[in-house]
Amino acid sequence: MTGKLFVVGTGPGSPEQTTPEALAAIAASHVFFGYGPYLDRLSLRDDQRRVASDNREELARAKDALMTAASGEAVCVVSGGDPGVFAMAAAVCEAIEAGPPAWRALEVTMVPGVTAMLAVAARAGAPLGHDFCAISLSDNLKPWTVIEARLRAVAGAGLVIALYNPISKARPWQLGTAFAILREELPWTTPVIFGRAAGRPDENIRVVSLADADPATADMATCVIIGSHETRVIERPGLAPLVYSPRSIGEPK
Amino acid sequence: MTGKLFVVGTGPGSPEQTTPEALAAIAASHVFFGYGPYLDRLSLRDDQRRVASDNREELARAKDALMTAASGEAVCVVSGGDPGVFAMAAAVCEAIEAGPPAWRALEVTMVPGVTAMLAVAARAGAPLGHDFCAISLSDNLKPWTVIEARLRAVAGAGLVIALYNPISKARPWQLGTAFAILREELPWTTPVIFGRAAGRPDENIRVVSLADADPATADMATCVIIGSHETRVIERPGLAPLVYSPRSIGEPK
Repeated sequence: MTGKLFVVGTGPGSPEQTTPEALAAIAASHVFFGYGPYLDRLSLRDDQRRVASDNREELARAKDALMTAASGEAVCVVSGGDPGVFAMAAAVCEAIEAGPPAWRALEVTMVPGVTAMLAVAARAGAPLGHDFCAISLSDNLKPWTVIEARLRAVAGAGLVIALYNPISKARPWQLGTAFAILREELPWTTPVIFGRAAGRPDENIRVVSLADADPATADMATCVIIGSHETRVIERPGLAPLVYSPRSIGEPK
Repeated sequence: MTGKLFVVGTGPGSPEQTTPEALAAIAASHVFFGYGPYLDRLSLRDDQRRVASDNREELARAKDALMTAASGEAVCVVSGGDPGVFAMAAAVCEAIEAGPPAWRALEVTMVPGVTAMLAVAARAGAPLGHDFCAISLSDNLKPWTVIEARLRAVAGAGLVIALYNPISKARPWQLGTAFAILREELPWTTPVIFGRAAGRPDENIRVVSLADADPATADMATCVIIGSHETRVIERPGLAPLVYSPRSIGEPK
């Protein structure tokens, strides 16, 4: 009996944004590992069982999933959004590299999904319309000095910035400090988008200037997008503004 | 009669990676604008018509689509991947900003999709497992000096790099020059992934070192992912290697 492991992204939250490939991987699996709220979104059959764990236990969850797959089960590790973006795919790879040789022989399939920044960007217009980056603001896994250097480098180079994991109870000051750093690198009129729960019933998209960006607007479910020098806001009568980053910069050839 | 405009991402190419939301927007539309090969992927009804245009006519296509929507039609602009990543969403916003006031009153809905770098990353392991960026290598819309400065900034800052539009007949030398620049900034052992047509029957994923990266491996349908200092390769017996970027860096707290 040969086990297998799917690492699946279910998209930003709405079932309308989950791919058929993700649903097929879920249908083919029997044991599900993931953060409880992500597992809650699944409609499992009687022959499928779930093992929920906390948001900060990714490596232990990955090991448990690999051990279960190695025992011959069809296992699914579930991430919201895309599993390769600040989610379970890297944790599974870390566990495989550090684990027993048998884990390297397992069939492992990563199933991509619509990651949060794409869903938020779509709701706001086209803020990621030119070069952009995704940076996790969590300093649990890297020093804050690295995060600060990266923010300055990418803002200075003109990339739009999508911030994942912007704030939590255990990390209350990082987002405010990030805004303070970015106010040294970018015009204070730069558009900032707070995109919460994009595509879900409790969706909330707010657009402010970098000068007015208040960390209290964000929570753990928020993706924050900070424009570049080029990012623009189109006001529309009776409709939400469109925020976009033009495709061209400087002197096009 | 009020027109509306959908700007839809159909994902990397496999129907299994197209979201229900994208299919619903397509079903609700009557006139389709897009690059021919993207329109060819759709199964349209008799009451739906298509207007194909060339890959380099995004702004003209956006204007035509807006004009048609303003005339009262339900219009769909189709992109592969995600429409907000080097695709039609920004072109539509540019056209709205420069166009007649009536275009600002149109209902415009961007529908996100799985963008190429996520599909390629999933096939390779988890190369985007920590901070990363997406940079278009096309110097049609920005000067090459800007691209070079961005490559140096992001490589120096430790971000994984996904290159879109790496090469074309009209832009034959840019990818080789980008590799030469990155060899000055990164170890020559850094993993490089050439991901072509991820999720499609003609999919081809190749992993080489930065030292061995050959621009001739890429074509217009390729997304090239270049690792950071941290990116690792797990060799597996009888299976493709897993390329991943660990979630942590330096001294985790």
